[in-house]
Amino acid sequence: MSRVRVHNFAVSLDGFATGEGQSLDEPFGHAGERLHEWFFETRTFQAMQGKTGGSTGVEDAIVRTWDTGIGAEIMGRNKFGPQRGPWENHDWNGWWGPNPPFHTPVFVLTHHPRPSVEMEGGTTFHFVDATPEEALRQAREAAGGLDVRIGGGPSTVRQFLAADLVDHMHVAVVPIVLGRGERLWDGLEELEKRFRVESVSTPSGVTHVTFTRP
Amino acid sequence: MSRVRVHNFAVSLDGFATGEGQSLDEPFGHAGERLHEWFFETRTFQAMQGKTGGSTGVEDAIVRTWDTGIGAEIMGRNKFGPQRGPWENHDWNGWWGPNPPFHTPVFVLTHHPRPSVEMEGGTTFHFVDATPEEALRQAREAAGGLDVRIGGGPSTVRQFLAADLVDHMHVAVVPIVLGRGERLWDGLEELEKRFRVESVSTPSGVTHVTFTRP
Repeated sequence: MSRVRVHNFAVSLDGFATGEGQSLDEPFGHAGERLHEWFFETRTFQAMQGKTGGSTGVEDAIVRTWDTGIGAEIMGRNKFGPQRGPWENHDWNGWWGPNPPFHTPVFVLTHHPRPSVEMEGGTTFHFVDATPEEALRQAREAAGGLDVRIGGGPSTVRQFLAADLVDHMHVAVVPIVLGRGERLWDGLEELEKRFRVESVSTPSGVTHVTFTRP
Repeated sequence: MSRVRVHNFAVSLDGFATGEGQSLDEPFGHAGERLHEWFFETRTFQAMQGKTGGSTGVEDAIVRTWDTGIGAEIMGRNKFGPQRGPWENHDWNGWWGPNPPFHTPVFVLTHHPRPSVEMEGGTTFHFVDATPEEALRQAREAAGGLDVRIGGGPSTVRQFLAADLVDHMHVAVVPIVLGRGERLWDGLEELEKRFRVESVSTPSGVTHVTFTRP
């Protein structure tokens, strides 16, 4: 059975996975890039940008697992773009540029479906108004036996965790206090009891917490 | 100048430093002992209980610093006992037994002062209705040039952090999701900017985050 995985999902010490005030210029709102600076340093991230260089230590090793064996992604609408409500037009195809880093089918959860968009490099965005279970069914079918990644944002990850659909999760706890935004952990009391949990700190100051279904 | 220190202060991944429903039998409410199991394993904790044995690894080394050079503690009333409002009597002298592990003057913050209580082993509880600044002034005077520990609970630590009175803090992030209780981090946005922050995970799964005033 293909697994459902979450990777490189950053939260602050106070549990926020994104700041307040998402906009076209600030996908993470007032958090800016503070949750992801550690990630930008890695060779894996640099390669996603078509660049060379970057760190190749333990942090990069952890980050690098994000796309191994992944056949489809599910993301919330806010990871696609900052629009709310009905789409005003279909001209803008998300934050991810003409050649998004996913290279698989991507299912964008939205109450406002629109036609699928095929991008360069193998990414196709499908817009679906569906429960987590139904979205996962579609993503699994598209993944051809490979794993499905839940890409975020926080409310999407939280929904899949609440429905006990996640088999592996990597959370990067960044030692900052964001104060406001959207929390990952709400409503997930005793989540740890469903997983084998490991914590490893890296010199960036980030702690990588992995949750693996036993 | 003597420093103000916080030690062995455990929080969950979702930032709760205590659970919901404190009572005489459950000082940490529904959290039970889940925030402190890692701590109980250490030789330092065992010694506090008058026992021998316990771990002597990195975790114990971190824990052990809690009383070095400490001349007084300040704690919130809820770390003394579960009573709320006016004291019904003065017969019960807190959760800490006849010989509390502090062995210094301890200033208990409360809106309901009562006479000081001298315990065995050098601990004297003083009950003060004071601002953080005034309580610290009294504790510093009692500490005779040594450091002052802010012992908790979360609202007390938070008040001292908000007033920028803390010089060193050790927080143990325990990889559990408590879901409810009292949060440490509320109202402390960008706390990290005032400190040098380090994170170290130990095999217990706990991540020790230290905040040191530069």
